[in-house]
Amino acid sequence: MAIEGSSTEPREKRIRLGMVGGGSGAFIGGVHRMAARLDDHFELVAGALSSTPEKAKASGLELGLDPSRTYSDFKEMAIREAKLKNGIEAVAIVTPNHVHYEAAKEFLKRGIHVICDKPLTSTLPNARKLKKIADESDALFVLTHNYTGYPMVRQAREMVLNGDLGPIRLVQMEYPQDWLTENIEQSGQKQASWRTDPARSGAGGSTGDIGTHAYNLGAFVSGLELEELAADLDSFVEGRALDDNAHVMMRFKAKDGQRAKGMLWCSQVAPGNENGLMVRVYGTKGGIEWVQKDPNYLWYTPFGEPKRLITRAGAGASGAAARVSRIPSGHPEGYLEGFANIYSEAARAIYAKRKGEKLDPAVIYPTINDGLKGMMFVDACVQSSKRNGAWIKV
Amino acid sequence: MAIEGSSTEPREKRIRLGMVGGGSGAFIGGVHRMAARLDDHFELVAGALSSTPEKAKASGLELGLDPSRTYSDFKEMAIREAKLKNGIEAVAIVTPNHVHYEAAKEFLKRGIHVICDKPLTSTLPNARKLKKIADESDALFVLTHNYTGYPMVRQAREMVLNGDLGPIRLVQMEYPQDWLTENIEQSGQKQASWRTDPARSGAGGSTGDIGTHAYNLGAFVSGLELEELAADLDSFVEGRALDDNAHVMMRFKAKDGQRAKGMLWCSQVAPGNENGLMVRVYGTKGGIEWVQKDPNYLWYTPFGEPKRLITRAGAGASGAAARVSRIPSGHPEGYLEGFANIYSEAARAIYAKRKGEKLDPAVIYPTINDGLKGMMFVDACVQSSKRNGAWIKV
Amino acid sequence: MAIEGSSTEPREKRIRLGMVGGGSGAFIGGVHRMAARLDDHFELVAGALSSTPEKAKASGLELGLDPSRTYSDFKEMAIREAKLKNGIEAVAIVTPNHVHYEAAKEFLKRGIHVICDKPLTSTLPNARKLKKIADESDALFVLTHNYTGYPMVRQAREMVLNGDLGPIRLVQMEYPQDWLTENIEQSGQKQASWRTDPARSGAGGSTGDIGTHAYNLGAFVSGLELEELAADLDSFVEGRALDDNAHVMMRFKAKDGQRAKGMLWCSQVAPGNENGLMVRVYGTKGGIEWVQKDPNYLWYTPFGEPKRLITRAGAGASGAAARVSRIPSGHPEGYLEGFANIYSEAARAIYAKRKGEKLDPAVIYPTINDGLKGMMFVDACVQSSKRNGAWIKV
Amino acid sequence: MAIEGSSTEPREKRIRLGMVGGGSGAFIGGVHRMAARLDDHFELVAGALSSTPEKAKASGLELGLDPSRTYSDFKEMAIREAKLKNGIEAVAIVTPNHVHYEAAKEFLKRGIHVICDKPLTSTLPNARKLKKIADESDALFVLTHNYTGYPMVRQAREMVLNGDLGPIRLVQMEYPQDWLTENIEQSGQKQASWRTDPARSGAGGSTGDIGTHAYNLGAFVSGLELEELAADLDSFVEGRALDDNAHVMMRFKAKDGQRAKGMLWCSQVAPGNENGLMVRVYGTKGGIEWVQKDPNYLWYTPFGEPKRLITRAGAGASGAAARVSRIPSGHPEGYLEGFANIYSEAARAIYAKRKGEKLDPAVIYPTINDGLKGMMFVDACVQSSKRNGAWIKV
Repeated sequence: MAIEGSSTEPREKRIRLGMVGGGSGAFIGGVHRMAARLDDHFELVAGALSSTPEKAKASGLELGLDPSRTYSDFKEMAIREAKLKNGIEAVAIVTPNHVHYEAAKEFLKRGIHVICDKPLTSTLPNARKLKKIADESDALFVLTHNYTGYPMVRQAREMVLNGDLGPIRLVQMEYPQDWLTENIEQSGQKQASWRTDPARSGAGGSTGDIGTHAYNLGAFVSGLELEELAADLDSFVEGRALDDNAHVMMRFKAKDGQRAKGMLWCSQVAPGNENGLMVRVYGTKGGIEWVQKDPNYLWYTPFGEPKRLITRAGAGASGAAARVSRIPSGHPEGYLEGFANIYSEAARAIYAKRKGEKLDPAVIYPTINDGLKGMMFVDACVQSSKRNGAWIKV
Repeated sequence: MAIEGSSTEPREKRIRLGMVGGGSGAFIGGVHRMAARLDDHFELVAGALSSTPEKAKASGLELGLDPSRTYSDFKEMAIREAKLKNGIEAVAIVTPNHVHYEAAKEFLKRGIHVICDKPLTSTLPNARKLKKIADESDALFVLTHNYTGYPMVRQAREMVLNGDLGPIRLVQMEYPQDWLTENIEQSGQKQASWRTDPARSGAGGSTGDIGTHAYNLGAFVSGLELEELAADLDSFVEGRALDDNAHVMMRFKAKDGQRAKGMLWCSQVAPGNENGLMVRVYGTKGGIEWVQKDPNYLWYTPFGEPKRLITRAGAGASGAAARVSRIPSGHPEGYLEGFANIYSEAARAIYAKRKGEKLDPAVIYPTINDGLKGMMFVDACVQSSKRNGAWIKV
Repeated sequence: MAIEGSSTEPREKRIRLGMVGGGSGAFIGGVHRMAARLDDHFELVAGALSSTPEKAKASGLELGLDPSRTYSDFKEMAIREAKLKNGIEAVAIVTPNHVHYEAAKEFLKRGIHVICDKPLTSTLPNARKLKKIADESDALFVLTHNYTGYPMVRQAREMVLNGDLGPIRLVQMEYPQDWLTENIEQSGQKQASWRTDPARSGAGGSTGDIGTHAYNLGAFVSGLELEELAADLDSFVEGRALDDNAHVMMRFKAKDGQRAKGMLWCSQVAPGNENGLMVRVYGTKGGIEWVQKDPNYLWYTPFGEPKRLITRAGAGASGAAARVSRIPSGHPEGYLEGFANIYSEAARAIYAKRKGEKLDPAVIYPTINDGLKGMMFVDACVQSSKRNGAWIKV
Repeated sequence: MAIEGSSTEPREKRIRLGMVGGGSGAFIGGVHRMAARLDDHFELVAGALSSTPEKAKASGLELGLDPSRTYSDFKEMAIREAKLKNGIEAVAIVTPNHVHYEAAKEFLKRGIHVICDKPLTSTLPNARKLKKIADESDALFVLTHNYTGYPMVRQAREMVLNGDLGPIRLVQMEYPQDWLTENIEQSGQKQASWRTDPARSGAGGSTGDIGTHAYNLGAFVSGLELEELAADLDSFVEGRALDDNAHVMMRFKAKDGQRAKGMLWCSQVAPGNENGLMVRVYGTKGGIEWVQKDPNYLWYTPFGEPKRLITRAGAGASGAAARVSRIPSGHPEGYLEGFANIYSEAARAIYAKRKGEKLDPAVIYPTINDGLKGMMFVDACVQSSKRNGAWIKV
């Protein structure tokens, strides 16, 4: 069984990685580093971990970076690293949303691959501009819609593609959380502070932060394209500028002659839901259900037969799941492993680039196009809600 | 522990019950009979079990009815039984929807209590008329929104009323099924046949058959009043006249100064969902979740504390749940027991009527008002969907 | 679908039932009455509900019994009812264990069918004597090992019989509860009081009260015969005379050339377990798992395939399950319905007796033999534990 | 929140690690490498990855090791690395069991810390000898009973220590698997081959491979010491030399004046169980339950209160769990993260050694003592089973 997950590339060829953001106190930066490390495809060698010089320096020291490659300005890092003989080949951008555009631009235009957190940018115009830049760059752009890295999500997608469910009629997505049930942004909680701030997050609150994940996941698994949506957004917590709950109805483009619809609920004010991402897809021949908090399971129900619980790496697990599994069934993999799969897929793409080889079509990672779609989803949600739930084409 | 559930009324005083509909081959008629029997408050003594005389007769014989009290015409039954010295005191109406109005009218105007299946009628105008008739009658009108009879649903409602969740912000309802995934109505399946027929069901398909249950449950538990809704209905199965899937966004009337919203999904084409009724309610202080297929459990999450799994008759079960429980915790009660609770509540109300006593306020059962609200919900869904999801006041 | 569960026998032929025990304050008496009522095969017409005359009378009145058929002495009831033209045809014995033998004897020898709660008796010698009496009587003896009445237990048994699991190797049984975690018998709790009293319960505490259920269930599903066991019993609560926890290792007689073993754990001092009866059976080709608190589900795992969740009356449910199901899948049935199945199976056997017909082999109910085996199990547990866990043949 | 999990030690101080075993085709070697890498405390710099020179060389190349530090003989590695200026400080031993003793000995006596897979050795005498060697060595000996690294297992232990459950009465352990249901060792499956071979595994089959894990976990969480056990082992698969199923009854040393007992079931022939490790502990005041396949949850039931579901890093999670958590609640961590916690605890102990500091008492890892206890458990199981389940003191 080739389920070790460790790199089979000789060590000197590990990808030299830089990071923008992710200094001490950050959440997602540490996740990116663990994800990059797990399969040993990357080596973190440079960072603009904070825009505050002292913090950047201290954080770099903590992570064992060479002080000469610890920056407080991402542009400076892009310029210098691009000139170094062993400069970074890829950069992870893990800042609040409003920095993504400027940072990604600097690296992309210097041919440095970008691995960027979602949502793509804080504004739709910037997203469109970034798409143009990425399309013109020779460098790769990878968006960390990490939930698509879970093996059973891969399997779900493969089953839909294989027609196991028949033409798809329904996609039900939800992503409830509870951490913003109270106004913690006013008491200085750092994560809450920027995520509820339009200047740093953009026009979408829960829609941008988690709604984009749910939408991306529904589209990824179902293989459907969103056509239009009607949304009712709300900011339940007093004084909050961005939405903390969204109810969305969706219509997808018909596929295989089958009309399809869906619903999406995302919320940050639903007590008892820690990170309740879930997707359910129903076709004419069967249904599937996947719940993020129990990620090693995939429910599959061929119509008229008993429900089947497919487990990661277990009986019934498909090739698509096995490709991104490390350990046997019954030994649960989690969020970091799924996240690491995005990094490892990126690594495979970068290796192919290095060698000028064609990328194995089995390799999948979210791209600038997914990022742009996410921004269009947020924009449509906001527009629809302003127009009292009118249907908005995306 | 007074959890026996058996009647404490001496036997001669059991309520004499008639039934309209429910002849052989029916589904819900048998359910009503078992529900009526479980706690021994009722005795079935007459029936218009079918409009086909032979079938009515045979069905009556099967059930051990006195042949002289086996009718093929409900009106005749109403007239004759009203005159008998020991005529029926109450009647259960368990026909397809389009018969409810005419049947209920005949009994109500003769002072015979009506226990009627949902939805109330097949048209909104008839529902309004029936409400008038019921309001003017001295007889009781009980609608079998049976899911409100489950002990943990009672507890959920009590917890919301007690303020355990704080003011309510969100009510998420769903009721997916899969039995109409294919066009079985055309192959003569009896249940499918009338439930997909506008003439017998009314304007709503899934919305009428199960959406009303989900809406009723959400309103029952949350204590909120629906203000307006936006719906997107669909008939996914070719040739089907009524909706088999509905996506609905809702806005409730503010309560305790708190704005509240919700979503409802009902479907009969979601493979793997047998009878997936679920309600989740979230307030500023906590959340609850109840799933019909596992009805003895109630999840309760006070914000910032671990989730608690409250079990029927177990530690943490409230008085409202205990009132309608028969057996100790860990010994599951099911659908029939919940249904029987509606019958037993009706019995308590009838006993109070008999004696001219004031009804114990703890006794709860769905009334004509719930029935009318259900019909307004269906009507609003249909109107909104026709107008491309415009918000419709109810 | 013949899933109504209601009797198809004309009413005048309902079986006339008497009851011994089950006066007010009892638990299991009410359960028996609801179970007898649900499918309408029985009519309770006489009772020796208590040995205290006033209580017997009051309880009879409460239940609507004719005062002339309310007794305070079961022997008197047996004598008189045997002589009445419309005397009882069957009697339910729902007293504490030590009364079973004497009561059952009186009815059996007068040709009155006995439906008796478990365990069979309070002593093994009495169990043997009762077996002899039952074998010689023309009347039926039905033991309410009610858990074998659950539809999915029937299906599990059928699957084993069909060879779906291959020859059986392992039977794992458990039945943890927590209600005797503290010494509530000393504070006068009625149920705890007699169940922890050797004079009324017999030599087994948890082993007799719940261990017999678990053992019976394991044997019922697996079709295996116990050969020997080794047990370690304990009374964890100070001052308790009978075991409140038992660990048991088992060896079954080989079947189909396959050696089989098992384990049984029963406990009344395991906090968090309300009524945790569970059985798991593993063969060379697959495994099954059934958990009483979620009785509508049966896990089935053919080796090397994904786990399947079979639901009562759902896809994959077998004929054996359908026979004893009343309502569609997704509409949960519970403990009372399973209990009612034992009563309805008894009714079918009594109907066959009345008519002198051969009993449909599909009809299954626990008999005197199961009762004797249960007593031998308890005895073996007690003997083994006294001899420090030595293996005892049964 | 300090939940990043990344090392806060500057990079040059990462611990230089060697590995014995774990060449291509191995399972647990890759797991150890990922576990060592996740938190960035270790750097793999040398290896005797296989005893076959070509395979050792190729495997080293694959992992990016310096060819001069790729060995095919662990003794040679120990000798040379001990002399190198930057030789390894620690070694991971991930071979089949029969190699553990010889390998560990060579490193321990040269002052190189050992991180060794379980069970400790293949024979009890070797285990005793190794304990002596480890006790005399200045180097650390860490046994990878990795399940004790799961955060919720840490919490469970802490809760027991805090007295939340009261004095402990019961410890129920189980570890069913199904991968050896058929005789795959004869078809050359590498893992099956050595694990069913007495020469390489030792006297215990399932008892050594997984029973030791279950026993270690039960002891870890409950804080109890095993006093004696009675076991019934079996080899259900024809031709198998070692046990593939074990039923064990246990008696623990009394603690806090409370007698305690337990049961352990381990099996490799229970279809449907992938890796079903579970532990349940019951005291006079409450119970807990933890299931390895869903490791982020801990059920806690204070007696007489509703069950609580405590989630890793969620509300109710304790300090002991937080110490070894990396990401927020609702973002599942898995097997590798738990395994990595053992490595990171080892790292903390090694750092303290380096600095001559006293180790933070919060740091917990399994030691040579746990290893010896595991071997005594296996030995007692085998002895007891040979003597037909007699109680054996350990």
